[in-house]
Amino acid sequence: MSKLILVRHGQSEWNLANRFTGWWDVGLTEKGVTEATAAGELLAQKNVLPTIAFTSLQTRAIKTLNLALEACDRLWIPVTKDWHLNERHYGGLTGLDKQQTRDKHGDEQVHIWRRSFDVPPPPIDKGSEFDLSGDPRYAGIPVPDTESLKLTIERVLPYWESVILPQLSAGETVIISAHGNSLRALVKHLSGISDDEITGLEIPTGQPIVYEFGDDLRPSGERYYLKDA
Amino acid sequence: MSKLILVRHGQSEWNLANRFTGWWDVGLTEKGVTEATAAGELLAQKNVLPTIAFTSLQTRAIKTLNLALEACDRLWIPVTKDWHLNERHYGGLTGLDKQQTRDKHGDEQVHIWRRSFDVPPPPIDKGSEFDLSGDPRYAGIPVPDTESLKLTIERVLPYWESVILPQLSAGETVIISAHGNSLRALVKHLSGISDDEITGLEIPTGQPIVYEFGDDLRPSGERYYLKDA
Repeated sequence: MSKLILVRHGQSEWNLANRFTGWWDVGLTEKGVTEATAAGELLAQKNVLPTIAFTSLQTRAIKTLNLALEACDRLWIPVTKDWHLNERHYGGLTGLDKQQTRDKHGDEQVHIWRRSFDVPPPPIDKGSEFDLSGDPRYAGIPVPDTESLKLTIERVLPYWESVILPQLSAGETVIISAHGNSLRALVKHLSGISDDEITGLEIPTGQPIVYEFGDDLRPSGERYYLKDA
Repeated sequence: MSKLILVRHGQSEWNLANRFTGWWDVGLTEKGVTEATAAGELLAQKNVLPTIAFTSLQTRAIKTLNLALEACDRLWIPVTKDWHLNERHYGGLTGLDKQQTRDKHGDEQVHIWRRSFDVPPPPIDKGSEFDLSGDPRYAGIPVPDTESLKLTIERVLPYWESVILPQLSAGETVIISAHGNSLRALVKHLSGISDDEITGLEIPTGQPIVYEFGDDLRPSGERYYLKDA
C-alpha cells in the first residue's frame, strides 16, 4: 500500500491581494509560512512520512514543501521540481486583481474564465510586465501564453503517469506540493470528478490530502484530509 | 568558464555547544540562519547565480542551501542531496563536547584525532545514542563507524569526479552546501594542499568560496571569497 500526499501551497502574497497569479512568482505570507509548517507537523503527528517529493518551479510551492519537510524531519528526501506541476497560466489576467478584472471584462466574462473547464483567458501580451518567456527558470520550457483548466490537466497528467506514478508503484510515500489547479487536475483524475464539477472544487491551502493506492495502482478508497484521519 | 561555489553551513547548535557532530543531525542556530541568508544575498549582489546545487543528507547543510537559494531567488534550481557530501564521521567522539573529550582521552590524543590526516577516532559503539545505522535516511548507505579526514576524502572525491565535475563541464554554475571536512576534501584536491596543511585549514561558515574553471576543467586560478570579489 503506497500513499500519495497532496498539499496546496500556503497563502501567497497575491492570494491575499486577490490578484490572478498563475505562473507569476510570488512569496508566501506569514500565514502561508505558518500553514506550511503546520502541514509538516501534521505529517509527523500522523506518522505519514514522505520518502520522495515533487513540486513546481514556483517559490510558493517549493517553500511550502521545504517548510513542511523541515517540520517532519524529512528535508533529506529527494525533491524533483518540474514546470508540469506549475499553477494554471492565467494569460492576460495575470497581475490583475479580481475587481480590476471585472471592471475591464465584465462580471459574466470573468465568471466564465474562472469557472469554465475549457475556455482560456486572453493570452498574455508579449513583453508585458508579467511575460515570463525570458525568465532563466523557464529556459527550454514551452511557457504557455494562457491556459484553461483543461489545458492545465493536459500537461499535469502525462507527468503524473510517466514520472510520479512509477514512484508509487515502487512503494514510495509521495508528497506533491503544488497549486490549486495543478492539484485539481490530479484530484479530478484520481477521484473521477466531472468536467463541470471540478471547476468548483476548492482545495484548501496547507491541508494535506491523502490517497492510498493498492497494488493495482488505483486509489483504494476516497481521498481524505489527513487532519481527519 | 564555469563557476563552483562552496558554502559551509551556517553555525549549528553543536558548533555553538562545541560538541563533535559528524553525521549526527542538528539544526542551525539563529546566527546560522542569518549566515545562510547573507550567503544568498551575496550571491545575488555579486550576480554569481547557481544553476544547479549539491548538498549532503544533513539538515544543517540542506537548510543553509535552501535559505541561500531563497535569498538569491534560485529556489527553483535542481538540488541533489547525497551522503558522499556528509561531514566526517567522528565515531565514538560523536556527541562529546571538547572538554569531555579531553577529560576522557587526554589533550594529546584529542589533538591527534582533530589534526591528523589519517588517524580516525575510535569507532562508535553499535546501539549507542548516536548510532545512525537504523536511521531511514541512511537505508542502503554504508554508514561509517568512524572516519579520518583521509577516509572522508576517499568518499568525497569519487562523487566529485563522477557526478559534480560533469555539471561544470556542461557549463553549469554549481553550488555545494556542505561541511568543514567534506569541503576540505574538495579544497585540498582543487588547490593542491598537502596532507599536513589541510588539517589546519579553517573553512568559515556561510562564506561562499569560488573557483573558476577553464575548458580543461582545471581551476583557472586561486580560490577566492566571493565577498572579496
